[in-house]
Amino acid sequence: MNKGQATRQRIVAEAAALFNQQGYANTSISDLMAATGLRKGGLYNHFSSKDDLFLAAFDYAVEQVTREYRQALRQERQALKRMDAIFQIYQRLVDAPLLPGGCPVLNAAIESDDTHPQLRSRVQQVMTLWQSLIAQILRKGVERGELQPHIDIDAIVTILIATLEGAIMMSKLYDDGEYIERAIAHLRQYLASLAQTPSAM
Amino acid sequence: MNKGQATRQRIVAEAAALFNQQGYANTSISDLMAATGLRKGGLYNHFSSKDDLFLAAFDYAVEQVTREYRQALRQERQALKRMDAIFQIYQRLVDAPLLPGGCPVLNAAIESDDTHPQLRSRVQQVMTLWQSLIAQILRKGVERGELQPHIDIDAIVTILIATLEGAIMMSKLYDDGEYIERAIAHLRQYLASLAQTPSAM
Repeated sequence: MNKGQATRQRIVAEAAALFNQQGYANTSISDLMAATGLRKGGLYNHFSSKDDLFLAAFDYAVEQVTREYRQALRQERQALKRMDAIFQIYQRLVDAPLLPGGCPVLNAAIESDDTHPQLRSRVQQVMTLWQSLIAQILRKGVERGELQPHIDIDAIVTILIATLEGAIMMSKLYDDGEYIERAIAHLRQYLASLAQTPSAM
Repeated sequence: MNKGQATRQRIVAEAAALFNQQGYANTSISDLMAATGLRKGGLYNHFSSKDDLFLAAFDYAVEQVTREYRQALRQERQALKRMDAIFQIYQRLVDAPLLPGGCPVLNAAIESDDTHPQLRSRVQQVMTLWQSLIAQILRKGVERGELQPHIDIDAIVTILIATLEGAIMMSKLYDDGEYIERAIAHLRQYLASLAQTPSAM
């Protein structure tokens, strides 16, 4: 990485932390200048517009979380254990976030849905990928006989993501990990109820 | 209501719609002037600061939703039917919102959690009231023998709210009612699994 690339990377990382806490629209160029120690011209050397930086920072934020997921998933084969690894990463979004401010997808979804079509469409892409990843875990679980054969995978994916994201919102609102813990305990039980019972195998 | 009060009410209603779509911080005084047709001085006649207007608009937004809840609950006695009435109101937040922009509590929670302590504390109050209201419905259901006696009411309240709010986020992100519908179908089934079974009565 040359000096220019390193500076770009540093701007993106600082911007991602600010955006994820303050919101995209509410983070000013002055905030970005203060966080990076660069002048306006220095920022615009690397990004053609604030929107351009927004999207790079959102991608960076998502990449931070997905890297953790990939790592965790590599260690587990069974569907319920893989889902458990995902639950632990959601838990860490509250307890020990890589990036301050909670879940970047949730934050960007809420901010962009009525006002920022370009960011919204990027968030949709990420959420769609995220749904496919979980659907894939569940589908493999069905194929391997770990989960019941006729479960409605799309519906289960919605339940899992909605419950986790809603609980992140509650835990962040009260600064209290209990909400995400309750959500995870419930979802573990829910998934266990979809497992292939020994007697049916 | 005199003319001054009517103007105040109109400002609050317009501001609530803007804030709920664009975010609180991202709505400028110029946006508010354009929406209300008032000059800056006209706005500051009624509100001492933008924060003051923020809080009044948030209260107004919450009041719009809670009025619907109160009306729906008046018609039902049974816990599961009361919860069903609540589900239908969440569904309407997506399908036919009184206020554009989705759930005001979710939106304000995400926006305020890291940046706006005063609004955050107001959102906490509303969320706490909301949790108590649902807990009360479930507790009555236990007392009346409709729900099992040893259910963990606090945990159930978290699951219900988290799943509904997360699903609202997904339905708003994709502009697709399917997510909230799946969440509601799941929660109906979940509550039914907590009902006192006929054989045990």
